[in-house]
Order: sequence, then structure tokens, then C-alpha cells
Amino acid sequence: MSEKNKNWVKAEDVARLAGVSRSAVSRTFTPGASVAEKTRAKVLQAAEQLGYQVNIIARTMNTGSSNFIGIITSGFDNPFRSKLLSPLVHQLALQGFMPLLMNADDPEQLAPSLKQLLSYHVAGVIITSGAPPLSLAEEYLARKIPVTLINRDANLQGCDRVASDNAQGMQLMVDYCRQRGWQEVGFIGEDVSNFSTRERYQALVLAAPHFNITPQFIAGGGYAAGRAAAITLSRCHVLICATDMLALGAIDGLRSLNDGTVLPAVIGFDDIPQAEWDPYHLTTIQQDTDALAHHAVDLLITRIAQFDLPSRQRAVPVKLIIRNSA
Amino acid sequence: MSEKNKNWVKAEDVARLAGVSRSAVSRTFTPGASVAEKTRAKVLQAAEQLGYQVNIIARTMNTGSSNFIGIITSGFDNPFRSKLLSPLVHQLALQGFMPLLMNADDPEQLAPSLKQLLSYHVAGVIITSGAPPLSLAEEYLARKIPVTLINRDANLQGCDRVASDNAQGMQLMVDYCRQRGWQEVGFIGEDVSNFSTRERYQALVLAAPHFNITPQFIAGGGYAAGRAAAITLSRCHVLICATDMLALGAIDGLRSLNDGTVLPAVIGFDDIPQAEWDPYHLTTIQQDTDALAHHAVDLLITRIAQFDLPSRQRAVPVKLIIRNSA
Repeated sequence: MSEKNKNWVKAEDVARLAGVSRSAVSRTFTPGASVAEKTRAKVLQAAEQLGYQVNIIARTMNTGSSNFIGIITSGFDNPFRSKLLSPLVHQLALQGFMPLLMNADDPEQLAPSLKQLLSYHVAGVIITSGAPPLSLAEEYLARKIPVTLINRDANLQGCDRVASDNAQGMQLMVDYCRQRGWQEVGFIGEDVSNFSTRERYQALVLAAPHFNITPQFIAGGGYAAGRAAAITLSRCHVLICATDMLALGAIDGLRSLNDGTVLPAVIGFDDIPQAEWDPYHLTTIQQDTDALAHHAVDLLITRIAQFDLPSRQRAVPVKLIIRNSA
Repeated sequence: MSEKNKNWVKAEDVARLAGVSRSAVSRTFTPGASVAEKTRAKVLQAAEQLGYQVNIIARTMNTGSSNFIGIITSGFDNPFRSKLLSPLVHQLALQGFMPLLMNADDPEQLAPSLKQLLSYHVAGVIITSGAPPLSLAEEYLARKIPVTLINRDANLQGCDRVASDNAQGMQLMVDYCRQRGWQEVGFIGEDVSNFSTRERYQALVLAAPHFNITPQFIAGGGYAAGRAAAITLSRCHVLICATDMLALGAIDGLRSLNDGTVLPAVIGFDDIPQAEWDPYHLTTIQQDTDALAHHAVDLLITRIAQFDLPSRQRAVPVKLIIRNSA
């Protein structure tokens, strides 16, 4: 045992100072455990005096279950994923869980990340939008580790998912376009393998059977992809984009044409902070990241409590934010 | 012990199948430990067959030291901090450490976050730029937990820090302004309590004693702050901004004036992805986030190995990226 380890105050030390049993100390720090108010007060005072901290590592060893939750995401530099991360970390902390962050940007990191999370005995896993393949979810489920997907599709037994209500979002856009008399629509999406792109495109087609829709799917997505796609769609009335990043690129692509013709309106999906900036004032569908995080954590902890629930699916309402781009 | 826990394959199971001792299994999975090649191969084959994972929780209990590193940051929606997070997580993983992410955005979360990280026996803590107060660093150091600061100032015994070379960055900017004949300078910074703003402003004043410098410090910083500050500085030759977010706001603020006068050039600091976007093409000082992360992790792990080293300080070189904004 290292010298440093000797410095940690133990529950036994607290028990001795408080003049109570070791088990009374343990019960004081276990949520929901029963302990007399007087005993509890003595324990808390002794703990404060000694600088005692609950040893979560020891608790994990004793109970066999950890309070680690793996969050598997791809890249932190996507503004929407960054915006989702804050409420996720916050909601998990409120429930006493500690997130372990895994970046699945690099496909070669996926297998090591799986092994690593297993070695921490994660109590559950949240997989966010983006690259991580769903085979990963199957690996966790096979080990009876609950998995919740955010803005992802899956037909996996025992896997829960929460997603923004894409059908509602596209209906809001289509209603707005009808009011404006726009029927020639360009759709800009990421690769068709991307769930959000696929679901939003399908919802658009369903909601607007009489529109003339020209789709462009650009692998990778992002600002540069939107910029390139918009240039080829400049004869449309409106460009409907699967993400705000595509939409911001689209606005700049159209602007670069500078050919005197009337340019299409542009509508995005996400409402990232940059959507409000002066050059964009992007009309977009706002995803409720707080609600997405809240439902993801709620689904996960209820399944941690009971693994064999049927699969559940929740849709989070969205809002149309009208700015100047459309 | 929960039913789930019973499902975990134990080192004993691997030893039995491989026909080796429990200690041979342990040595196979301990970096640097000695084990015969033939034994090692048997252990790995048995481990693969059984789906055995090293139990890090048990290892922490046995050795008294964890491989958790606290990363204390404020907000994930700042593009520079997001850009720094990816290489930090990656570098820590390469060294076998697992980051525990703490959001110190909310001052009320600081005390709970401290207690929480202590309860995980973190081996060290990295505090990034932004809001977390340095009293937090003292709390960890008092418990002999190593602390590394990124782009932060501290005169704390035993605390290491790595920062971009702000003096070099401001010298590069000043040389460039001299070439262009710009001597009337507006400086836009965040609150003066912000380390990067303070150090960059001081470096500018030192590097350019003959320039006429008008500073504006706006609490909170960010796009809106830069936008508001620029409007009051429109008579300058150039606006030097402490961050790219301030600079992007400044460009839009100047554009909003639309009064026919010649507008100042704008220079930023960071090189976030948005700096390249069409409406900005921001000339800026590029921070090397990979090198910042590399040094932060290196400083931390060398101090984990030996806590009583003298304080160390490293400056990471920066680059001037010339685009159209200046």
C-alpha cells in the first residue's frame, strides 16, 4: 500500500471519534439507510472534523455495482453534442452517477473503449448521435448492461431510446413553407447511414407529398458539406437542412454565388449557439437538450433497477424558431 | 452481492482454465510486470475465451491508488474548451488514466464536485481555463493530490502549469501590426480576473510601448461582449481580441455600423473552427491544443510518481494564422 493511501481517513477512524459502530458510519452515508438522528449527527460531526470522504471504490467492491455511466460520443467539437453534454453530466450527477466519457471518433478506439468501460463495471451506457456503431450497444446488452440511445435508431431487445420528435419538427417546417408558398425544396443531409438525416428526410417526404423535393446527402456533414451542397440547389425556394451546421454552411454557399438571382431561404435543425449570430439569424428547429438528457438518464436508471423491462421509446417535442434566414 | 455481480468472470476462473496460478494472471495484466511468454499466451487465450476483463475497481482497492483524473472545466459549449477536451481525454487514455469530468460552471457545484472527486480517490486533477477558482487547487494540494493548470496562473507550491506562450503570440501580432502601419489599437478582453485576458493584455502593452492602446474589458466575454465592445472602438486601426469568440462578435459589431467609414482590422486568439467560416476569415493566433494536452498529462503523471517536485511551468509555442480579417 502506498504511503499516500495511509493518509486516507477510514470509516473506522470516524466511528472511533464519534463513539459509534463502524456500521453506523456506513449507514449514515448510504442513501435510504436507517440510522438514529443522534447517531447520524455524531457521525457527520466526526466526519467533518477528520475530513472523511465516502470511499466509492470500496463501496463498489462491497456491493458489486458501480455508479459509473459510460457516455459514448463522437467528437466534442460538434456544437450540438457539446450543448447536450452539459445537461447529461448534470443530470447524472443529480442521481449520484459519475460519467465516464468515451470518444468514439476513431473506429480503432471502439474495441479498447468497450473493454475499458467493462473494466470499470459501468452500471449503464448512453450512446449519443454520431459515429459509434450500434454493434457496440449489443455488446453491452449481452452483458446485461443497460443502454440508452439519444437521437439514434435501434431495434434491440431491452434497449431504450429518446429522440427529438423529428416528425413534429418536419411538420412545423412544412406548415411554415406552405404559408410562404415555397414548394420547390432542396434537402441537405449527412450520409444516409446517419439516423437523424434519414428520419428527418423521411418525415419531410411524408409531411409534404406535393412538394418537389431534391435531396443531397453529403458524407461527413458539417459546415463545408452544407456550403458545397447549397451551391447546386440555388434554384429552390427553400433549403431544409438536417442540422444547423449544414444550414450555416448552406447560407455561406448561397452568399458566395453572388449572381443577382433571388436565393433560397434556409432552415436548420438543432438551434446551436452560432445559429443566432448576425451573418446567419437562422430559422431552425430547436431541440430541447435538457429534456433529452433528463429522459436519457431516467430511462437508464429505471433499467438499471430492472434490466428486463420491455424496450421503451420517448419523443421530445421541438420548437420552430423563426429568424431571418427563412 | 447482486446477481449481476456473480456474472463477472474472475481472475481465478482464468487461472483455472489456463492451468496457471492466480498471480500469473495478475502479472499478465499489470503493465511492466514480469511473466513468461508461454504463460502469458495461455492466460490471454483463457481470458479471451471467458470474456475476462481486468477489474480496475479491485485493483484500486488492492493498490490504494486509482487511475482516475479529475478534469475541472467550466461549460462545454465554449468552442476552445471543446477543442481542448478531445486531446486531453485521448492523452489520458494513452497513459491508462480515466478522466472524471466536472463542470464548474455553477459555483454551487464546486464544493460537491471536490467531495465527489475525493471520494473516487482521484490520482490527480487538471483545471482548465475559465471560472473554477484556484482555492480549489489548494484543497487538492493540501491532500497531496497533484494539480496541473492549463492556461491558468498560480503561485502554489507543487502546482504545475502549462499555457500557450502569450508573450510570443502578442509579439507576433505586434510585429504584424507594425508591418501594416497600425498603431491605434483597441484591445477587447474578458473580465480582468480572467488569466488569459490579463496576461495577453500585459504582453501586448510590453511588446508595443509606442502603440496607442484603448482597452475594453467585458465581464463574461463571448460573442455578444465582443460585438458590443467593437462598436465603441470603431475608430481604431485594429482590434486585438483576447479570444476568437470576442473577435467574431467584434467583426459582426463593426459590420452592423455600416456607416461608410473604413473599419478596423480584427485579430483573435485561439483558432476555433468558426474562425475559418466565410463571414469571418479571422486572422488569429493558433493555440496548439494537442501540445497543451500532452504537456498537461506529462506534468501530471510525473508528479503523481513524485509529489514533492518543485513547481514547473511550460509555455507552448503559438502560430499567427493570417486570413482576411486583418
